[in-house]
Amino acid sequence: MSTATELLSAIKDVGTDPTRGGYSRHGFDHAELELREWFTAEAGKRGLDVEVDRNGNIWAWWGAPGPDALVTGSHLDSVPGGGAFDGPLGVVSALAAVDVLQAKEFKPGRPLALMVFAEEEGGRFGVPCLGSRLLAGVTSAETALALKDRDGDTFADAVKAAGLDPARIGRDDEALSRIGKFVELHVEQGRGLIDIGSAVGVATSILAHGRWRFRFTGQGNHAGATPMTTRHDPMLPASQLVLSARWAASGVDGARATVGRIEPIPGGTNVIASSVDVWLDARGPNDGRTRTVVERITAAARQAARDEGCEVTVTEESYGDTVHFDSALREELADALGGKVPGLPTGAGHDAGILAAHVPTAMLFVRNPTGISHAPAEHAEADDCEAGVAALAKVLEKLAG
Amino acid sequence: MSTATELLSAIKDVGTDPTRGGYSRHGFDHAELELREWFTAEAGKRGLDVEVDRNGNIWAWWGAPGPDALVTGSHLDSVPGGGAFDGPLGVVSALAAVDVLQAKEFKPGRPLALMVFAEEEGGRFGVPCLGSRLLAGVTSAETALALKDRDGDTFADAVKAAGLDPARIGRDDEALSRIGKFVELHVEQGRGLIDIGSAVGVATSILAHGRWRFRFTGQGNHAGATPMTTRHDPMLPASQLVLSARWAASGVDGARATVGRIEPIPGGTNVIASSVDVWLDARGPNDGRTRTVVERITAAARQAARDEGCEVTVTEESYGDTVHFDSALREELADALGGKVPGLPTGAGHDAGILAAHVPTAMLFVRNPTGISHAPAEHAEADDCEAGVAALAKVLEKLAG
Repeated sequence: MSTATELLSAIKDVGTDPTRGGYSRHGFDHAELELREWFTAEAGKRGLDVEVDRNGNIWAWWGAPGPDALVTGSHLDSVPGGGAFDGPLGVVSALAAVDVLQAKEFKPGRPLALMVFAEEEGGRFGVPCLGSRLLAGVTSAETALALKDRDGDTFADAVKAAGLDPARIGRDDEALSRIGKFVELHVEQGRGLIDIGSAVGVATSILAHGRWRFRFTGQGNHAGATPMTTRHDPMLPASQLVLSARWAASGVDGARATVGRIEPIPGGTNVIASSVDVWLDARGPNDGRTRTVVERITAAARQAARDEGCEVTVTEESYGDTVHFDSALREELADALGGKVPGLPTGAGHDAGILAAHVPTAMLFVRNPTGISHAPAEHAEADDCEAGVAALAKVLEKLAG
Repeated sequence: MSTATELLSAIKDVGTDPTRGGYSRHGFDHAELELREWFTAEAGKRGLDVEVDRNGNIWAWWGAPGPDALVTGSHLDSVPGGGAFDGPLGVVSALAAVDVLQAKEFKPGRPLALMVFAEEEGGRFGVPCLGSRLLAGVTSAETALALKDRDGDTFADAVKAAGLDPARIGRDDEALSRIGKFVELHVEQGRGLIDIGSAVGVATSILAHGRWRFRFTGQGNHAGATPMTTRHDPMLPASQLVLSARWAASGVDGARATVGRIEPIPGGTNVIASSVDVWLDARGPNDGRTRTVVERITAAARQAARDEGCEVTVTEESYGDTVHFDSALREELADALGGKVPGLPTGAGHDAGILAAHVPTAMLFVRNPTGISHAPAEHAEADDCEAGVAALAKVLEKLAG
């Protein structure tokens, strides 16, 4: 019988990033594959039957596989230089909750599975929740297989190297149909539970969220020999885009817009870039406000490109509308937890948000005392982690009893 | 007997960059080491005695080594995604000029050497003209050995791997004292010779030039869960710096300022960066104007960092004052070329600019019909290359006769 903290401690040295700090564990890379093996072994210790679906998501069954299974889980990959809790806390809490239930000799009255989703952060191939998107058919196999990582390797290459068949990637109705209800436990990524003063909460909604890649193309040239007046430097409109994102999101209630990744080509100090790729992450309380923000940023980017004599192309790399979690299932969670658990919205995307369009889905959040996520400062106290495990065990007991 | 074009053709497949286009050949990397071996073999074919000095610069002697040698040469490394001519044209023209002189059975009346300088572009370790700077003691061994490339390998690691002794890196008065006069042939990196209508010209001056690294530090966090009002996002002041560079350089006559390299840490799409490194390349007609530009950009960067609640540190990574080439040697070149060769200034830095503070130094430029450099579009027509070789041969014949 292990606590969440003990289980996290077992993987604390896997995928550490000496350059960025924190962890860099990306879909099907060395670190994530090691974590998947570790999870498989832990599931085996608990007598769970492990299988990997066509899209690389892991299922660990307590009892016979679905239909109408109660499923819980999260992911093991991270953003570049991410924290220890985003993803793994949901996975280790599921294992620890099984320990709690097995210790009291609980027998599930319906199929129950623990899941580990593939490439949730999109840290390697750019599309978040790729495992659940493929499972549910939200992203097509064709689109996914062609995605490239920073080394130029495709998703097809990566799944092949991980022992999967690229020809079988894609929508998997049979696997999806086994899920009756889905519950994901996750570290909170803001300050909601700090402000409420509660260790655990239930998610009410997820912001609409998309990613757009802007490619500005100008004229690569010599940084010393090219007069200022004859330049077509794509770094200028790219920088304007960063400022426009702040301006546009600040003007729309509840919206967020961020540029965290920018790559000038060729990227030499003494070289005017020939092109610059900029990734925009934009979110909002609903589709309309999110689209408004992106349209304003795009218009500003196009104008800035014209002003510099540059071209710009815009590609939507992913998009998901606002998620409102199933209210009946939220009630069931509240009942299981004694009716006292607060509800809170989140700006962070999750596999639960993808599945919510297909099956009744809920999320439990565990307090994060720093309020910081996607960074090494992300944290959860051991006591709060145990409160999360206790809550998840109660929910599983009630829903699968 | 080879033409410059034939010699360039022999190395056209070495260090091509499929991602950026053009060539990525950096000091002591695989491609540059291959080019060094190729040069050594070519020098051997011409009966030249090759040695590598303590700092990795190659010397190919025609006759006994100095003192008071006439030296010509350039470099074989490139910027990331650079053209085929910047550097290699000077090296192959030196070999081809030796062919011209040997064909007419010329015997040098003084020591004559061809040189290949190490890491001229600073594309790997960030400091341009590193080989000539170390030779002349402009950059200290201590500073150089600690420089790191993008993989975290130090210059000390790189020279060791190339068979050099890190303990012997640094100022080399003995080697430097062998140079009586230095002449570097180089592709022009602007439109000066296009406008004049001449295949070949002589350099008059090089702009003052420095590189500064700005590190903006904020608070890494989640791109979706962090409200716009609570952010300390270092991408904001980093982007302001790019715009300030344009504004500041445009306001100072003859100045240039460029940001071609920017690296957010951790660099995830759904992550507010915790820090951003931005490299500024700034140049000007003299020290005062260059410093004015950098001071204005720095003041704007500091203000933008304060506005966002970020910190900024500024590091001068290299600096060199304006170079005015030796007027007596320029006269000698004009005499050798029949008095008809135009003079022109350049904004591009060169090893010749470093050596100019120590020995009489001159440069020959070959017309570049695109006016573009540090990019794959850089070019020189075969006829113009041969005019360059003919001019260099005449200069060597006159100065070493």
